[in-house]
Amino acid sequence: MADAAVKTAGKVKSVTSTANPLVKQIKALAMKKNRDREGVFLAEGRKLLTDAMEQGWQIETVVCSSEMAADPGFAATAARCRATGADILEVNGKVLGAISRRDNPQTVIAVIRQRWKEANHIAGSLKAPGDIVIALDRVRDPGNLGTIIRAADAAGAKGILLIGECTDPFSLEAVRATMGSLFHVPIARLSEDEFVAMALKAAGGVQIAGTHLQGAVDYRSIAWQEKPVILVMGNEQQGLTTNLAGACDKLVFIPMAGQADSLNLAVATGIVLFEARRDNLVMRTIEGAEGVSSA
Amino acid sequence: MADAAVKTAGKVKSVTSTANPLVKQIKALAMKKNRDREGVFLAEGRKLLTDAMEQGWQIETVVCSSEMAADPGFAATAARCRATGADILEVNGKVLGAISRRDNPQTVIAVIRQRWKEANHIAGSLKAPGDIVIALDRVRDPGNLGTIIRAADAAGAKGILLIGECTDPFSLEAVRATMGSLFHVPIARLSEDEFVAMALKAAGGVQIAGTHLQGAVDYRSIAWQEKPVILVMGNEQQGLTTNLAGACDKLVFIPMAGQADSLNLAVATGIVLFEARRDNLVMRTIEGAEGVSSA
Repeated sequence: MADAAVKTAGKVKSVTSTANPLVKQIKALAMKKNRDREGVFLAEGRKLLTDAMEQGWQIETVVCSSEMAADPGFAATAARCRATGADILEVNGKVLGAISRRDNPQTVIAVIRQRWKEANHIAGSLKAPGDIVIALDRVRDPGNLGTIIRAADAAGAKGILLIGECTDPFSLEAVRATMGSLFHVPIARLSEDEFVAMALKAAGGVQIAGTHLQGAVDYRSIAWQEKPVILVMGNEQQGLTTNLAGACDKLVFIPMAGQADSLNLAVATGIVLFEARRDNLVMRTIEGAEGVSSA
Repeated sequence: MADAAVKTAGKVKSVTSTANPLVKQIKALAMKKNRDREGVFLAEGRKLLTDAMEQGWQIETVVCSSEMAADPGFAATAARCRATGADILEVNGKVLGAISRRDNPQTVIAVIRQRWKEANHIAGSLKAPGDIVIALDRVRDPGNLGTIIRAADAAGAKGILLIGECTDPFSLEAVRATMGSLFHVPIARLSEDEFVAMALKAAGGVQIAGTHLQGAVDYRSIAWQEKPVILVMGNEQQGLTTNLAGACDKLVFIPMAGQADSLNLAVATGIVLFEARRDNLVMRTIEGAEGVSSA
């Protein structure tokens, strides 16, 4: 319970050089091997920092422009981060640009400790019919992964299982695409063999549905509400491995009408996910309803 | 009908320098102003070249590696392109990399003439109930636009209307994301005022449904099959303008369950689109069916 221990308040430092060792270290988090070694990642923008803080994620460092540091609203956020041990690093635009590798960087970038759940913990959260977990087989594109995490959050999915060599959910691009949902959706990684073993163990109690080129079942004809569901989506280029397809109870397809032979992975996931959760997402037709649509 | 005229066969040239004026000119097509001026765009990879050719798009130049040029299967494609007037430019990996701005460039890059349809032509293709056109209000992200074009193709939509300042469907990134659907789906651009005028004119015969933050109608409760549909999707950050929202017959929302307050634009479009086309995409449950799911 180290995380829950009383923290020493973080320090405030001012840095103007991109050659500063601390800046170099943070900049190096653009590479996966450095993120893995340090167990942290970068999140850009004030909204992501606030989301992370509200969800109790451990903020290691807050990098911000001196203008932002002077903003009274932001000062409160920074103070809360400091109180939980985060260092505050006031920098100039050049340093922010160097860290985010962007011409127009956000004025706040946070270094946050990664959180991985146990795959069994996520599978164990499948209790009632309607509950759903998304399993991704070797997802390659960080934008797709981030977008799927966002859709999983929006649909109320219980978590994401990353099977085999997936792109890193903690890369800058994936984090950006989650729009903050990264902090809401539990994520675990496991090998293909571990997933197959999990599927065998869960047999009977959970319905495992995979999308597949040779899928035999229309995705709308599945009894999604019969049992909790693990929805398995294959790699962008190759689809599901034979091994994973064999571990599925049902292989489904999305009927198409045009000349495209497939959909983008995130779009396909969204379509099947919202169909699977159809009865759980309350049908409403209300004037002035709060429901939100697209962005 | 210049396009239909008998063409003089294109020339074959060999270029090894990125400083070659022709290479520079092609490389410059990465910028929208140059694409607009020349009326052409770049498509990477053999599949996109074949798709473009099969759909009768005018190929101006085929840039390929000398290895690819020596491939017998590709030689036939190149010969067909030459017969319709395309020049063949044999280059090295350095030149291919410079044109595509990638470390591992495709071995074929085609310069293709742009095609824009008239907005009225696309609206005029809305004839029967179930027919659908997607209108995008100031879509900003090229990946989103390309992904939506791909989904529109897969769902059998009649075309795409780009309202106001949209990202260019002929940018490298958008073209990549379409996965070839660019060559199947008619695209037109028009101003917001022109769209509103079109909506007024179409009133009664066509149902105009927009997704909106304050949408009052669950997207699943619309009678999508009553009339042909124009589905209007708003900008990633701001949603629909008040003006466009006012031009819609119905404003719909997608109910959500988690903490995310919105979906990615392409995912939201896919979900509503496949719901709208639900009765047009034949429900099948067949062993060994040809239906294809995700990629």
